[in-house]
Amino acid sequence: MPASEALHEKFQRNLVFRITVRLASGPDALEGVLTNIHGIGARVGGIDQPGPSEAETLFDLDVFAVDDAQMDQVRAALADLDGCEVLAAIDLAMETHRGGACEVRSRTPIESNTDLRIVYTPGVARVCKAIEADPSLARQYTNIPNRVAIATNGTAILGLGDIGPVAGLPVMEGKAAIFWEFVGLSADPVLFDTHDADEFIHVMERIACGYGAVQIEDVAAPECFKITRELDERLDMPVLHDDQHGTATIVLAGLYSALAKVGRDIKDVRCAISGAGAGGTAVADLLLTAGMADVALCDSRGIVSRDRDDLNDEKRALAERTNKDNLSGTLTDAMAGRDLLIGLSKPGIVSGQMVQGMAADPIVLALANPVSEIRRDDALAAGASIYADGRMMNNALAYPGIFRGAMDAQATRITLEMLMAAAHALADCVTEGNLMPEMMDPNTHQAVVAAVAAAAKQ
Amino acid sequence: MPASEALHEKFQRNLVFRITVRLASGPDALEGVLTNIHGIGARVGGIDQPGPSEAETLFDLDVFAVDDAQMDQVRAALADLDGCEVLAAIDLAMETHRGGACEVRSRTPIESNTDLRIVYTPGVARVCKAIEADPSLARQYTNIPNRVAIATNGTAILGLGDIGPVAGLPVMEGKAAIFWEFVGLSADPVLFDTHDADEFIHVMERIACGYGAVQIEDVAAPECFKITRELDERLDMPVLHDDQHGTATIVLAGLYSALAKVGRDIKDVRCAISGAGAGGTAVADLLLTAGMADVALCDSRGIVSRDRDDLNDEKRALAERTNKDNLSGTLTDAMAGRDLLIGLSKPGIVSGQMVQGMAADPIVLALANPVSEIRRDDALAAGASIYADGRMMNNALAYPGIFRGAMDAQATRITLEMLMAAAHALADCVTEGNLMPEMMDPNTHQAVVAAVAAAAKQ
Repeated sequence: MPASEALHEKFQRNLVFRITVRLASGPDALEGVLTNIHGIGARVGGIDQPGPSEAETLFDLDVFAVDDAQMDQVRAALADLDGCEVLAAIDLAMETHRGGACEVRSRTPIESNTDLRIVYTPGVARVCKAIEADPSLARQYTNIPNRVAIATNGTAILGLGDIGPVAGLPVMEGKAAIFWEFVGLSADPVLFDTHDADEFIHVMERIACGYGAVQIEDVAAPECFKITRELDERLDMPVLHDDQHGTATIVLAGLYSALAKVGRDIKDVRCAISGAGAGGTAVADLLLTAGMADVALCDSRGIVSRDRDDLNDEKRALAERTNKDNLSGTLTDAMAGRDLLIGLSKPGIVSGQMVQGMAADPIVLALANPVSEIRRDDALAAGASIYADGRMMNNALAYPGIFRGAMDAQATRITLEMLMAAAHALADCVTEGNLMPEMMDPNTHQAVVAAVAAAAKQ
Repeated sequence: MPASEALHEKFQRNLVFRITVRLASGPDALEGVLTNIHGIGARVGGIDQPGPSEAETLFDLDVFAVDDAQMDQVRAALADLDGCEVLAAIDLAMETHRGGACEVRSRTPIESNTDLRIVYTPGVARVCKAIEADPSLARQYTNIPNRVAIATNGTAILGLGDIGPVAGLPVMEGKAAIFWEFVGLSADPVLFDTHDADEFIHVMERIACGYGAVQIEDVAAPECFKITRELDERLDMPVLHDDQHGTATIVLAGLYSALAKVGRDIKDVRCAISGAGAGGTAVADLLLTAGMADVALCDSRGIVSRDRDDLNDEKRALAERTNKDNLSGTLTDAMAGRDLLIGLSKPGIVSGQMVQGMAADPIVLALANPVSEIRRDDALAAGASIYADGRMMNNALAYPGIFRGAMDAQATRITLEMLMAAAHALADCVTEGNLMPEMMDPNTHQAVVAAVAAAAKQ
């Protein structure tokens, strides 16, 4: 099995436990353990030997399972195995978030009274007076140019829905951790205790001066559209809604990459999008900007067309700028004869038959989380030439570099042109045999930073 | 000169430069350099040898000066000195704040796709669902229990006045650095672009759920009273205005320490306070709670009495609970025959003669910043038995431990009893020959943490 497929297989299992076992006969018994785990349907993603004492008989296994029941099966099987003792089983996601995923630290040690008098009173008064005299010095003498507000009201956390901002905070802290690790930005979760778009806008506007940029995150549609649009207009800094613009960038990057493989041009591609929420709408707009002529979106009631009378304001505007031929009908109708399906909707709503109705060798990007619109095997069996799901197309490839690039260039907003530049840069980083670039390669993020900064300066 | 006096002398000079010199004759020439600097009136607080090459001739001098003119004199004198070459002169306060004094970091490395899938999607969904099911788990799986909002609108930054929140940000970042270094709390500056108390309250209330506590900072009176009081009532977490409660704690700590030296009881002390703003009001309230019977405050128009008709609501309420004998008159009248003067007002407004009019062996805490109400020498010459200025009584002794203790104890508010406990703990840490405990001793802050947590649990 090639490495990328092994990774794909492992990553279909969302649950990761680190299970520590003591094996009576040491490394020789390890193969039995692995066979056992594999037989249950779980996968071992990493094996380590904690040590130093007893190192020859202790093993840490990173076990990937599809759900708690399967993980329980693994633990029970290992406990029953002769010569194998389970010492610990740690839920790595819970453990990693224990105490929070990010923290605010001093950038300077305070080890003497002189240190204190420099970072705080009386020394800090000089810094304040310098900024008062020349406000542009705030870029040099505060953390503002590195500071991103991750703003959410918790109404659309992942696929979990409106679980509230506090339950959603681990996502924001995870994003902050990524900002720091990938591009050195300081991102602060800001939790809004309101469902009202106008209040969200008002509150963010009042505290925006402490940040260099705002990332709107996991806010439900249609409120997210108004919030993002108005804050983008009112604030003199980059504002990006990750579920709109981050997703659109990743989709366009994947599309550029796929089109390069099949030697086709985006102008000749006809596209159906399943899902007309934050992601679908932004993807449609970016594809149109990138030169695609024909994009049709479907919501749960069918194709978004100018003939429908059940559309809210956002979707009515969408119907004006998409669906060139003003088609009506179902998702099946929208897909018929098209080259590209982008799914940003619900698990399992696309059948193999629907893919068979598309043009020859279609591209299927089925990105619903955590389970996609159609499984890889089914899509490929139905003739898809290229397939990707949400696991392979992670926004974390895009947003860190987009923000760093826009902020470094002192951009006051993020344009569709900057997102296109980011998508091109990502596609250019893709290596042979892959659709998307390597997340862990720092060059990936630096390429996005450079492309976005260059686009911002134009 | 004893060490504490040398420190005091050095710290009357607010400006610190690190001046790097190359001396032709190495260490032998150093004494000439130091004599020169001392002759100008500046002081050298530290000497280091950067290295390793040329280490024998290169010296880093931390030079303390009263102002820029004096520092310029030092630099010119060193440049003129035979065999001394000035290589660099760095303003340490500006340099320390370059890029900001604090930053948001990941608490976990992200080095593999598995790391990413644990800290972010899909693994983080487990953490979110756990908190959704049991909201109390937010204390375990987010940074909220360690997270303090440092909330300011920039209307009373240090002694600089209403310079706005962005110019005031270095103070907030400095406080955040102190929170991290002294007690491991994550403090986030939140800048409010509003002068209106009600709006400040409203905005803070909407975003409070992301924090474990709120520190109101450098907000002008009288708005600070309403903001602190209402947020304290509305929010289910500790709310503290450092300029009120932090200052009051430090003053009471200093008073306990002073009274221990002279063997007197707080109940027998009669006190005059110069300044009826945030600090003076809070100090009066804490002293009354601590058992002092007679406290009279003066604002710029004289003693705050029940007979005055020029008082705002805050001061009218203050007149009801202070000034037992309902005295009228000037600050001189307020001080006459009293044992204790606490200055939280303006530079130089107390004369030696006024101190002479106090009771025998009075205690003078003249805390105006950056220049006190009366100089040490003048106060001592006029008969003060104990003197302190703002340099010696730094809020950073109190607020880190108060917050850590209150948050660890899951207190929903900070009471005057908790502040009294903090003051007692600080006074107990004072070593022979000093009035206040050592800021750099971790035991100082841990003593406050323990005392406040214990008081909170009562």
